[in-house]
Amino acid sequence: MTTLDDIARELSVSKSTVSKALSGAKDVSKAMRQLVLEKAVEMGYSRVTRNTAAPRLAVFITNMEYSNPEDFGYEFVVGFRMAAEPSGYQVELIPLDQEMQRAMHYDEYMVLGNYSGGLFLGLSLSDPWMKDFETCGTPTVIYDNHVSGNPHVTHVGVDNEEGMGLAVQHLKELGHRKIGYLSSELKAYVYAHRYQAFFKAIEKCGLTADPELTGAAYHASDCLSQHLPRLLEKGCTAIICSHDMLANSVLVHCAELGLRIPEDISILGFDDIPLCRYTTPPLSTIRQDRTGLGKSSFFALSSHLNNAHLSTYLLHAELIRRASCAEAPQKSPKQKTDSSR
Amino acid sequence: MTTLDDIARELSVSKSTVSKALSGAKDVSKAMRQLVLEKAVEMGYSRVTRNTAAPRLAVFITNMEYSNPEDFGYEFVVGFRMAAEPSGYQVELIPLDQEMQRAMHYDEYMVLGNYSGGLFLGLSLSDPWMKDFETCGTPTVIYDNHVSGNPHVTHVGVDNEEGMGLAVQHLKELGHRKIGYLSSELKAYVYAHRYQAFFKAIEKCGLTADPELTGAAYHASDCLSQHLPRLLEKGCTAIICSHDMLANSVLVHCAELGLRIPEDISILGFDDIPLCRYTTPPLSTIRQDRTGLGKSSFFALSSHLNNAHLSTYLLHAELIRRASCAEAPQKSPKQKTDSSR
Repeated sequence: MTTLDDIARELSVSKSTVSKALSGAKDVSKAMRQLVLEKAVEMGYSRVTRNTAAPRLAVFITNMEYSNPEDFGYEFVVGFRMAAEPSGYQVELIPLDQEMQRAMHYDEYMVLGNYSGGLFLGLSLSDPWMKDFETCGTPTVIYDNHVSGNPHVTHVGVDNEEGMGLAVQHLKELGHRKIGYLSSELKAYVYAHRYQAFFKAIEKCGLTADPELTGAAYHASDCLSQHLPRLLEKGCTAIICSHDMLANSVLVHCAELGLRIPEDISILGFDDIPLCRYTTPPLSTIRQDRTGLGKSSFFALSSHLNNAHLSTYLLHAELIRRASCAEAPQKSPKQKTDSSR
Repeated sequence: MTTLDDIARELSVSKSTVSKALSGAKDVSKAMRQLVLEKAVEMGYSRVTRNTAAPRLAVFITNMEYSNPEDFGYEFVVGFRMAAEPSGYQVELIPLDQEMQRAMHYDEYMVLGNYSGGLFLGLSLSDPWMKDFETCGTPTVIYDNHVSGNPHVTHVGVDNEEGMGLAVQHLKELGHRKIGYLSSELKAYVYAHRYQAFFKAIEKCGLTADPELTGAAYHASDCLSQHLPRLLEKGCTAIICSHDMLANSVLVHCAELGLRIPEDISILGFDDIPLCRYTTPPLSTIRQDRTGLGKSSFFALSSHLNNAHLSTYLLHAELIRRASCAEAPQKSPKQKTDSSR
């Protein structure tokens, strides 16, 4: 276990210089601080839990709201605290922006902040630290992004394959045979994964997988204008959406087209965000247990600190039946639109 | 939370009858015991940690040795105990046979034994309790087998995709372009998964995936006689095996054919069983951290008991470089065999 003395010896400086540099004291030059930081990271100083009364964990949040119970991140953070704080950890929430990430390497930030581990919510592939995660030494848990090959990084999420299986199975049991799929852009890890999971689930249920019954676009409005008409034209009686916000847009747009939900077409979301209970009609969806994800994220960090290096940690998905799915109609939505002309 | 009183009331019997039935006392008839057990399971009595001084966890082992440090299961069990016992759990090892499974349903066995959760090592798809896992209410962790759709069951294992990625990447960096793959039969969950992971890894590395360079058979001897000759004929300079025991057979057989390992052909295993250090030459392989798997299995059970229901829990894989892999030869093994004729 690397100590302050080890770092001081290695750099031929005093222990107090190292200590001051790592605590961000003003009377150490910026250059010296950087030197000490880099050496500390190189020597694996970040990889150990240091003996402090309350070891610190950082929760970095970007592109995600978490302040109110209605926000997606709220229960996630609550779950994490519920598991971490009784175990003696101090949890700090840190809004993360790209500037912060460009200013300092991840391991350096964690050593400087004296954090034993970090949890990331809402990261995207364009975040500068994504590169750092390939080699970092700090125990790290990332929600909904996968980094392969670094033992210190764990991916936590919901079992998308199971969730998509539950969604397709539910619609099949309701008599639907032509099930469409609309998605946010497939560059994002989680949407690419759910898209594949959809095809797997369709095949597993003995239905025919047809890429023509699916569509993806970054903006929901593009999904509605570019893909939804084709799905209706081809006779889909049910549509699964990659996430609830998109499903809500589809609900609203289908209603504008004169389609009754669920009598003419069934719509099913994914995530179970708080909004789902308040859409018209309330949205059937696949639940991610956000409190459970938060708790598990702590378990994953604590596994790292106990030398069990997790790669992937997936929670069970759950089907939530509300009012947006029902038995397949006798007539497909297309026939209905045609006959009403 | 279901109590003995609840069960007694439901069945219109005394609490002491219920208590005796669940503790297996002799003065309760077999029929009554069965009645009480079924009602207890139905009412979810098995789903809660009861207030006992030392809650009990069961480790069921089948088809796997675990008594000696050389055995695959040994460190797994040690890791599980290392995590569970300091947390106040009592761990019992139970050799599992099919007769036991046929005699009683899984949930009933767990209620009767007063176990809060179970870990399974070495299960196969033909084990009778595999059916019970689809609906059981007992927190359960299964090593290397996946049960989808039951929130109480978690799959724990190594990240086979990452492992296969490390294996293929390593061989590619050594200059190998024709990499073969030999496997145990693909009906088993883990071997099917590794087989797919091999193709994924080959494609990701920009090599050509060719099913003709792969082969699978239940018996290692069949792999050697039916598939190995074709792989050599087609010019493979490296072979990855689905597990170390098979890799060892391939090592021995290639040596018998007059091939030098690793000069003429590189062989890479999977699992890092203790044997790998003693093969000729010592076997390069992908490590499953067995102590880590054991520890994680406890974390997964304890997550269930904390109401976070895990579906999948994968540990990082690690490349272990020993002496069975080296730079690709100038001549393929086939040319060598031909020219020595």
